[in-house]
Amino acid sequence: MTAYNNFEEHIARINDLCCVINLLNWDSRTQMPPGGTVTRPFQLGTLSDTAQNLFVSDQTIQLINAAKTEMDAAGVHPDTCQYRSVLQAEEAYNLSRRVPSKVVSELARLKPVAESVWVQARKDNDFKSFAPYLETIVELCRNTAESIGYSDHPYDALLLRYEPGMTSAKLKQLFADLKQGIVPIMEKAARSQQVTPEFLKRQYPVEKQAEFAMSIAQQFGYDLSRGRLDVTTHPFEISFTRQDVRISTRYDAHYLPMALFGILHESGHALYEQGVDPRLTRTVHTTDLLDLYATGGASYAVHESQSRLWENMIARSRPFWKHHFPQLQAVFPTQLGDTDAEGFYRSVNRIHPSLIRVEADEVTYNFHIMMRVEIEMGLISGEIKVRELPDIWNAKMQEYLGITPPNDSLGVLQDIHWSGGQIGTFANYTIGNMMGAQYFQAAHAQVPGLAASLARGEYAPLLNWLTENIYRHGRAYSPGELLLNATGQELSAAPFIAYLNNKYGELYP
Amino acid sequence: MTAYNNFEEHIARINDLCCVINLLNWDSRTQMPPGGTVTRPFQLGTLSDTAQNLFVSDQTIQLINAAKTEMDAAGVHPDTCQYRSVLQAEEAYNLSRRVPSKVVSELARLKPVAESVWVQARKDNDFKSFAPYLETIVELCRNTAESIGYSDHPYDALLLRYEPGMTSAKLKQLFADLKQGIVPIMEKAARSQQVTPEFLKRQYPVEKQAEFAMSIAQQFGYDLSRGRLDVTTHPFEISFTRQDVRISTRYDAHYLPMALFGILHESGHALYEQGVDPRLTRTVHTTDLLDLYATGGASYAVHESQSRLWENMIARSRPFWKHHFPQLQAVFPTQLGDTDAEGFYRSVNRIHPSLIRVEADEVTYNFHIMMRVEIEMGLISGEIKVRELPDIWNAKMQEYLGITPPNDSLGVLQDIHWSGGQIGTFANYTIGNMMGAQYFQAAHAQVPGLAASLARGEYAPLLNWLTENIYRHGRAYSPGELLLNATGQELSAAPFIAYLNNKYGELYP
Repeated sequence: MTAYNNFEEHIARINDLCCVINLLNWDSRTQMPPGGTVTRPFQLGTLSDTAQNLFVSDQTIQLINAAKTEMDAAGVHPDTCQYRSVLQAEEAYNLSRRVPSKVVSELARLKPVAESVWVQARKDNDFKSFAPYLETIVELCRNTAESIGYSDHPYDALLLRYEPGMTSAKLKQLFADLKQGIVPIMEKAARSQQVTPEFLKRQYPVEKQAEFAMSIAQQFGYDLSRGRLDVTTHPFEISFTRQDVRISTRYDAHYLPMALFGILHESGHALYEQGVDPRLTRTVHTTDLLDLYATGGASYAVHESQSRLWENMIARSRPFWKHHFPQLQAVFPTQLGDTDAEGFYRSVNRIHPSLIRVEADEVTYNFHIMMRVEIEMGLISGEIKVRELPDIWNAKMQEYLGITPPNDSLGVLQDIHWSGGQIGTFANYTIGNMMGAQYFQAAHAQVPGLAASLARGEYAPLLNWLTENIYRHGRAYSPGELLLNATGQELSAAPFIAYLNNKYGELYP
Repeated sequence: MTAYNNFEEHIARINDLCCVINLLNWDSRTQMPPGGTVTRPFQLGTLSDTAQNLFVSDQTIQLINAAKTEMDAAGVHPDTCQYRSVLQAEEAYNLSRRVPSKVVSELARLKPVAESVWVQARKDNDFKSFAPYLETIVELCRNTAESIGYSDHPYDALLLRYEPGMTSAKLKQLFADLKQGIVPIMEKAARSQQVTPEFLKRQYPVEKQAEFAMSIAQQFGYDLSRGRLDVTTHPFEISFTRQDVRISTRYDAHYLPMALFGILHESGHALYEQGVDPRLTRTVHTTDLLDLYATGGASYAVHESQSRLWENMIARSRPFWKHHFPQLQAVFPTQLGDTDAEGFYRSVNRIHPSLIRVEADEVTYNFHIMMRVEIEMGLISGEIKVRELPDIWNAKMQEYLGITPPNDSLGVLQDIHWSGGQIGTFANYTIGNMMGAQYFQAAHAQVPGLAASLARGEYAPLLNWLTENIYRHGRAYSPGELLLNATGQELSAAPFIAYLNNKYGELYP
């Protein structure tokens, strides 16, 4: 099929450019000497423009149409992988074309400036200096939403970019369900003593932290012949095709859980990327054609479901530490000589309201998300003004978590997302928690003896099920299709609530 | 000037792509996990095609013509930097257009295959398996030469790409002069004892090797806020604008000179790239528009002149070791406890014919080059057939160096250049030696007290002169113009011969 092959080759080149954009970002964060900050933005800008121009071009739609005509003539069924590829590219193309290039380039130009203003504002606890930039960003996002179009709420148009199939209405319902389920857990936990045990804060040499965490990551299935670990301020996972999937972490030599669970979190992302079917390499199904970066994940939320499944549902579980604690203790015999598997398990599963999202436990974390999503909806609809944000933020912190930030740096200024022009991505973290629990429940139902094998530290049965049902498909299915095919259910808060109740009901009765 | 600015912006984007190509290559050699080899070639291919298509496009010549029209109308003098930029881009454009894209893409496709066949052939000492690939490469290079055109020898057309202004006829004369000058040095040295002293082969921890060599590199002026050092099999320097200039090396824990002089050699390249005038960043003058990679060096030979000047004329000099040997001895007190500055100086300046070019001393090295250039000329003219190469190689080794390789792996198969499609680049190493000596001689004549400051380990006066006369100009002047402007002389073998006579006449009287 000549036309289809031409279409595939065109997308493959866009994927190459996206992989290179990822590499430029990886290098900036891990290897680049400081001087590079002067000229790296030009290189990134040119690559982004090139990828953007190549995708949002008449050539793309001509190749799409030619491939469709050819497949129709040959009687190719619309459900085949090939036909779906073309339709998905067409959908992304139409969506991209709807956003005026002026808005795209204005946002792209603003992003590095706004990010550096935000860095300084957070340092200086000075929301006012950041506010004008955020106002422009909100305005541009609102324009984007209007250009894309929506039937109910303008926020739906932004969700579409990051979490296809999700809407404000669905999200409100899911969040209401979840809130109802987790408030009692939080209340019970509040009655218990929630102090960080001293043994977690002892001296933990970082090389040994890395060695242990990476040995677990490899037992999970992270293939280091196609991966590597580096050190960065903000941990992340990034891939340049399934053949090269890198993670990073940050260490605290006096607090063990940070890098340990950080590495296992990013390894979860990496397992997803490495598990994509090799045949999907350099296709629509490993390319985010809207944001123009290379990824084999179906959406932000599906990706997050996997990092959280491996980090929380596996690595923060009692069976995990029953099996692995002796190994950890062997690496840190003096530091962990006065505790045991149960003590360690409990120490890394404390629930307590806190100011900073990225440091929150797996229960209260979701409140951090809910309040951000409410704020984003208000900003996009115009009901909330940027200048009101610090007050609204603090009021919502009090409402959801019962605490008020002492300043904006520990409050409304804590996250990078908005300064980067990302409005509409926070929801994915909590959707990911819900999806993760739903997948984990389905895996237990479908894989005989799964709990027993996990208790023995055997992760292949779980990895195989996840690969078969999620990883290998890349972006070939929407998050909703993927979930329904694997679990037989639509997205629901129930499995996540059940998981939390089961775990924390016992820890905090 | 609108048209000129459009031209500059167009070239700036090509430079961005070239910098990214360099980064992809750097990452492949230093950081990439093995799995990446499967998909990295696609990424490199797409970037190369993109840069190539952007440069050899109608848009480029339209922008060039518009800029010229605009400058002519405004009465801009053809000698200004701006006018010269446009003319140089036009020259590169016309040269690129002459080579059929079929030849370019065939060579690009063949290169990775031929390189891996060469790696295996060298390992297996099996020239025959590599020969068919080399035949195709020679054929493609001959086509390139015919397409570019020449008046005397087809090799001239290839030299044009790498060393503008150089011809076969000039090269023959320079090499004949040089040969006459250095044969007597080699003959005298052959009468002396030339054994590697045992103290160079002691245990030298690699971290300490790196630490010392990098401390010297920084004293030379290598700015690590715009640079870094990594470990690779084949050492190199590479830049992504003057803001980010990286080097690599390889270590032998039981042979001190390899990494020590290797790092200082690559640092010489790095000083050149870092010294480019910031105003030339992302312009014609920091972009090799023919080979499409980013570099601020006027040519391969000018670049090599600087790596060799810093490595050989500085770091292998007696004043250098008089000053720095106590520092080296302090780093390696047991290993170097039984020698002194003079002993060390002599130990790193032994002359003896050897099989491998990259391990040769600064005298015999030039014979390795001369024979390669003679062979390349014969291959391109058709007087030498690929199948005859092993015999011809061995005969020339005997003729020039009085030794015969025991096998092809240590003979005709030793260098990567031909497998990568590079025919016409070997000459630059010896031209670089000659230029380096000529520049060094001029610096001494023009900078009062230079020898004295070098003897005190003060490198700023030399670096400043080199920056003023060479580095800051990037590619704005041809190698010949640069040399004439700085030294008042055309290229000649005499200064290099004088330098060698002066140094080795004393060491081997």
